[in-house]
Amino acid sequence: MRVLAVGAHPDDLEILCAGTLAKYAERGDQVFMAISTNGEVGSPTLPKKEIAEIREQEARTSAAVIGAELHWLGYPDEFLFDNEEVRLKYIDLIRATRPDVVITHDPLHDYHPDHLTTGQLLWNIRVMTTVPNIKTEHPPCAKIPSLYFMDTIAGINFMPEEYVDITATIEKKKKMLAAHESQAAWLKDQYDMSYIKFMEICSGFRGIQSGFRYAECFRRSVTFPAASGRVLP
Amino acid sequence: MRVLAVGAHPDDLEILCAGTLAKYAERGDQVFMAISTNGEVGSPTLPKKEIAEIREQEARTSAAVIGAELHWLGYPDEFLFDNEEVRLKYIDLIRATRPDVVITHDPLHDYHPDHLTTGQLLWNIRVMTTVPNIKTEHPPCAKIPSLYFMDTIAGINFMPEEYVDITATIEKKKKMLAAHESQAAWLKDQYDMSYIKFMEICSGFRGIQSGFRYAECFRRSVTFPAASGRVLP
Amino acid sequence: MRVLAVGAHPDDLEILCAGTLAKYAERGDQVFMAISTNGEVGSPTLPKKEIAEIREQEARTSAAVIGAELHWLGYPDEFLFDNEEVRLKYIDLIRATRPDVVITHDPLHDYHPDHLTTGQLLWNIRVMTTVPNIKTEHPPCAKIPSLYFMDTIAGINFMPEEYVDITATIEKKKKMLAAHESQAAWLKDQYDMSYIKFMEICSGFRGIQSGFRYAECFRRSVTFPAASGRVLP
Amino acid sequence: MRVLAVGAHPDDLEILCAGTLAKYAERGDQVFMAISTNGEVGSPTLPKKEIAEIREQEARTSAAVIGAELHWLGYPDEFLFDNEEVRLKYIDLIRATRPDVVITHDPLHDYHPDHLTTGQLLWNIRVMTTVPNIKTEHPPCAKIPSLYFMDTIAGINFMPEEYVDITATIEKKKKMLAAHESQAAWLKDQYDMSYIKFMEICSGFRGIQSGFRYAECFRRSVTFPAASGRVLP
Amino acid sequence: MRVLAVGAHPDDLEILCAGTLAKYAERGDQVFMAISTNGEVGSPTLPKKEIAEIREQEARTSAAVIGAELHWLGYPDEFLFDNEEVRLKYIDLIRATRPDVVITHDPLHDYHPDHLTTGQLLWNIRVMTTVPNIKTEHPPCAKIPSLYFMDTIAGINFMPEEYVDITATIEKKKKMLAAHESQAAWLKDQYDMSYIKFMEICSGFRGIQSGFRYAECFRRSVTFPAASGRVLP
Amino acid sequence: MRVLAVGAHPDDLEILCAGTLAKYAERGDQVFMAISTNGEVGSPTLPKKEIAEIREQEARTSAAVIGAELHWLGYPDEFLFDNEEVRLKYIDLIRATRPDVVITHDPLHDYHPDHLTTGQLLWNIRVMTTVPNIKTEHPPCAKIPSLYFMDTIAGINFMPEEYVDITATIEKKKKMLAAHESQAAWLKDQYDMSYIKFMEICSGFRGIQSGFRYAECFRRSVTFPAASGRVLP
Repeated sequence: MRVLAVGAHPDDLEILCAGTLAKYAERGDQVFMAISTNGEVGSPTLPKKEIAEIREQEARTSAAVIGAELHWLGYPDEFLFDNEEVRLKYIDLIRATRPDVVITHDPLHDYHPDHLTTGQLLWNIRVMTTVPNIKTEHPPCAKIPSLYFMDTIAGINFMPEEYVDITATIEKKKKMLAAHESQAAWLKDQYDMSYIKFMEICSGFRGIQSGFRYAECFRRSVTFPAASGRVLP
Repeated sequence: MRVLAVGAHPDDLEILCAGTLAKYAERGDQVFMAISTNGEVGSPTLPKKEIAEIREQEARTSAAVIGAELHWLGYPDEFLFDNEEVRLKYIDLIRATRPDVVITHDPLHDYHPDHLTTGQLLWNIRVMTTVPNIKTEHPPCAKIPSLYFMDTIAGINFMPEEYVDITATIEKKKKMLAAHESQAAWLKDQYDMSYIKFMEICSGFRGIQSGFRYAECFRRSVTFPAASGRVLP
Repeated sequence: MRVLAVGAHPDDLEILCAGTLAKYAERGDQVFMAISTNGEVGSPTLPKKEIAEIREQEARTSAAVIGAELHWLGYPDEFLFDNEEVRLKYIDLIRATRPDVVITHDPLHDYHPDHLTTGQLLWNIRVMTTVPNIKTEHPPCAKIPSLYFMDTIAGINFMPEEYVDITATIEKKKKMLAAHESQAAWLKDQYDMSYIKFMEICSGFRGIQSGFRYAECFRRSVTFPAASGRVLP
Repeated sequence: MRVLAVGAHPDDLEILCAGTLAKYAERGDQVFMAISTNGEVGSPTLPKKEIAEIREQEARTSAAVIGAELHWLGYPDEFLFDNEEVRLKYIDLIRATRPDVVITHDPLHDYHPDHLTTGQLLWNIRVMTTVPNIKTEHPPCAKIPSLYFMDTIAGINFMPEEYVDITATIEKKKKMLAAHESQAAWLKDQYDMSYIKFMEICSGFRGIQSGFRYAECFRRSVTFPAASGRVLP
Repeated sequence: MRVLAVGAHPDDLEILCAGTLAKYAERGDQVFMAISTNGEVGSPTLPKKEIAEIREQEARTSAAVIGAELHWLGYPDEFLFDNEEVRLKYIDLIRATRPDVVITHDPLHDYHPDHLTTGQLLWNIRVMTTVPNIKTEHPPCAKIPSLYFMDTIAGINFMPEEYVDITATIEKKKKMLAAHESQAAWLKDQYDMSYIKFMEICSGFRGIQSGFRYAECFRRSVTFPAASGRVLP
Repeated sequence: MRVLAVGAHPDDLEILCAGTLAKYAERGDQVFMAISTNGEVGSPTLPKKEIAEIREQEARTSAAVIGAELHWLGYPDEFLFDNEEVRLKYIDLIRATRPDVVITHDPLHDYHPDHLTTGQLLWNIRVMTTVPNIKTEHPPCAKIPSLYFMDTIAGINFMPEEYVDITATIEKKKKMLAAHESQAAWLKDQYDMSYIKFMEICSGFRGIQSGFRYAECFRRSVTFPAASGRVLP
């Protein structure tokens, strides 16, 4: 199987679905990670260009932990919008990676506009990826991928529909998250706790909800034509 | 696997999930069908006792089509209520059949009070079936079954979350439905169409929604401890 | 009465509300049909310009069945966005047709971004149509039209609030749908069934829900100032 | 047309739908008003029996204003429950009055358990009223009435779907409300305003929402078999 | 201020709101804890009477940690129903404790019927507590208490509206929870973790959501007459 | 405390939250009022430029009643969109006023696109205001303000979560509203009532809901990181 996860910023995928991606990868699925924006506002001290470069490198280090292929889309952090050029870029991302399953942000329940826009974009272009008359670099897909929306940061406004047991991959998840060194200070400052601890509590809580030690959770996109069956690991 | 479907009246299961039950049965699962009420109001001409006996026989004929074991609970039609005696009866139904999966009416979105009460009862006693200090005829279960809510009559107020392809079992579904001869007149009168035609349109519509010729649809009960994974055929 | 229906692509109106439009027309109301986009991606083999011209012609043939006036807006298929120029165009559409009732896509529950944007645009400009300081080709309207949202394709995510009996106009609906010859192959390929059969099942299901042989269904837009009373046929 | 309104306590109908009932009556419809409970807790000073008698008389005086027939069900105030005996009583109420339309409390969004139970009871027994094998004093109905849920007290938790212009009947509504003299003190004490003023503000607000001077508002019960069309005045 | 918390079973309050109760108590408020049922099914080995006595003692030990007064209602575990006798009992509970604030289970979103019934009962009798014509052992209250619904077990189906920082009282919460020794095995068996660890993850997660180290969360009951302002500590 | 209210058009704040703003001001808080658009379509007779100037002056007169500082953003009436330039403008508005609390339109439930866009913009840029790498005229904020959504016009689609008693400031609210002389005719024409009367009914109704003579109502934005506690007066 081929799996594409699309996060708005570097580190979103690590917090919200890295355990599931690691599980896909461990069972032999091909995993792709894409990041919408360049994360250039993610530092209180470094200039935009510098922090963006650091974060891209961190994202590549993280993806390497599970052998995932990283797609860096590079849109300006905090200013992602849905327009024709951007839709074509995301259509081509799907056509380049040809996923059976796409995991991304929930377009309705998240807290950040870049998250909502990323989720909405993937939802919008889902069917278009198969349409020959929409030309992009890669040829049209043969089928529409399944679409899952991942948890929100701190689980705010999110009602889980599906859980994935990530007890066996929690260490890989930690390692992926730890790759985002430049972001550790922010969370330390905000919560007086490490990124790793923050994630452990969230994954532990989702685990308690689903009867596992650690879990991640998702919502499914029921739409036309409706997906059927679960394609989560 | 062991599967228990609980309908409020004779013929509810046939309209709403018989294709799925037939599919479970065909792949070798053990299927149980239970009916909450005696269907005694289901005739404009026959007295209560007589029509109830006819309907029980029809239900047995239908269950026999897929080799399911029928449990006739016999509560008064239109007057099913949730109380201690009734809860104990449903707890013992679960303990007697020991299902991995229970399919019943949606306790929130259906149109008939007996449907709602049946769905609510199964939801209420789900965990209690495993509790030793609640004594009934059969011993406590070792685990809590998964719980699915089936479509409503004519799909009113029902937002499907899961679909089951029943193209291969639609003929068995028709045969099961046809066993309820005593009810054919009612629908003919109400819609000027046969029971079979009515069901074909509903199953065809659910099929169009999910990319199959014929389908049935369900909602999952996300609760504590949360179920995970799909156990539909 | 004057009725304007606005679909995102050629054939949307035929699937979702043509029976109702035919009913309006039969009782003497003036019907207008508008199409947001040019449908240029609607062919796996023909180039954009060619298929767009074919589809416009098909839409005109369909509208002619009920004597409706067709408004072809011509925006690029799959890339309709809400901006000032587009709002002004839709404002002028209302001012040119001066409808008492507008029927369009549901801006919240549909499956396609062009559908959502079309529905949202009509909702957005509803009041603006009466405002003198917004200048377009035609003069401002004297009153705000009532607004109904039509069913979604395959009824996904749609909870009907109003039904219209289309038993008497189902043949005209079929004829209108049949005009879209270029699209027949897509559905045949997707569902192994004809466009007509697809529509018959959907309209038959909505009929079963409402006690008619065939029906179409709608949601009302309750907003400020709130509409009151039903203006469906 | 025949119209039945069912309130939980004496004065509920006056506050929530009397303007609509007056409008039905004025155009020649036959109006029935039924009260579930005896209102015996409705006094800080009078004993149960005495206040109940006073309130029944007040309800009769109010009904007389529009020539409505009053049905006093007499269940104990604050302790109305759904059981077989009570369902049969409400079935017989429908069979005795044979309404085309029933107006009652919303079973989901109201603030008082007697209101919720009254609304739920009417919803529950809707179809049963037509069933010959359920015997009550009066013969079964030939058809299922339409069902509307009226506003809640102070509009809390209520999202209107339909409005009725009661500008022409507001004076009758005031007169009906004024008949409930025994209750005037309670509201005076709670809000330092008269019953009449309280109602004027609520009806005025619903008017502002719908473009009338005064209005009442309703929700429709979309269920199986689904109602179609508006039967409000 | 006077605060009453009502849980369905011994230990529910400890898991869901003990940190908040401890905070109320620490600032000098009078805290009452009431338990609906006797918890008699809460042991896989002990007979009903014996485990019920043990659990009452555990509840008393827990309440003593914060100096709360315990009210043991003693209804049969798993079989709490809403009827006149039970309503009068809960009315008298309010009248005996005269709370400004009541905290209980959410009547809509919880996973256990005893929880739902407890929450519904408190909601139902809220206003009745002030009514003189409803006689119970204690005299009527002068005012209606504010009503908050506490989190659900494992937070399933619960969308928080208010948070309380319990960082300063988490140790007391642990001590209260630890008093329920007889229940420790169940959770150990279900999750392979201690009660304390389970609670720490849940309170830690609610803390992450609200910017505290540990938190508890609540929903408010917006009803008639609507509460205004926050009365949480 | 510092309070910023942002309305889409001149007079929105006066109708929807001026009583609350006056209350903040009276207790010594610093109040800022900002208007997204120039209101240039708000006249049936005057040209755009002229009516816009009049309305700005009216807004200044209104703000002066409570000593609030007015921020006139001047975007074209009816055509406010979310894009990078506009986001930066709203970020700088927050940085210039440095509010503890922001009050604006509900981004989900309002009736006008400019209202929805204003509410969405404030929600979108909430966190960005603190980010150093987003440069605007004023320096970044130290903390994220709390966010409340005010009532909708005529309360349509709005479910209040919080109320503020404005009985003591209703006269100031009237005075502020009266400053918008140019708009009086519109409402007179639409409802045959004065602006003041319109507002009195709405505020009176919200008062009835919350137990005050006059009230305004709000919804809270529960998001990440979640706000806690009430900061309304």
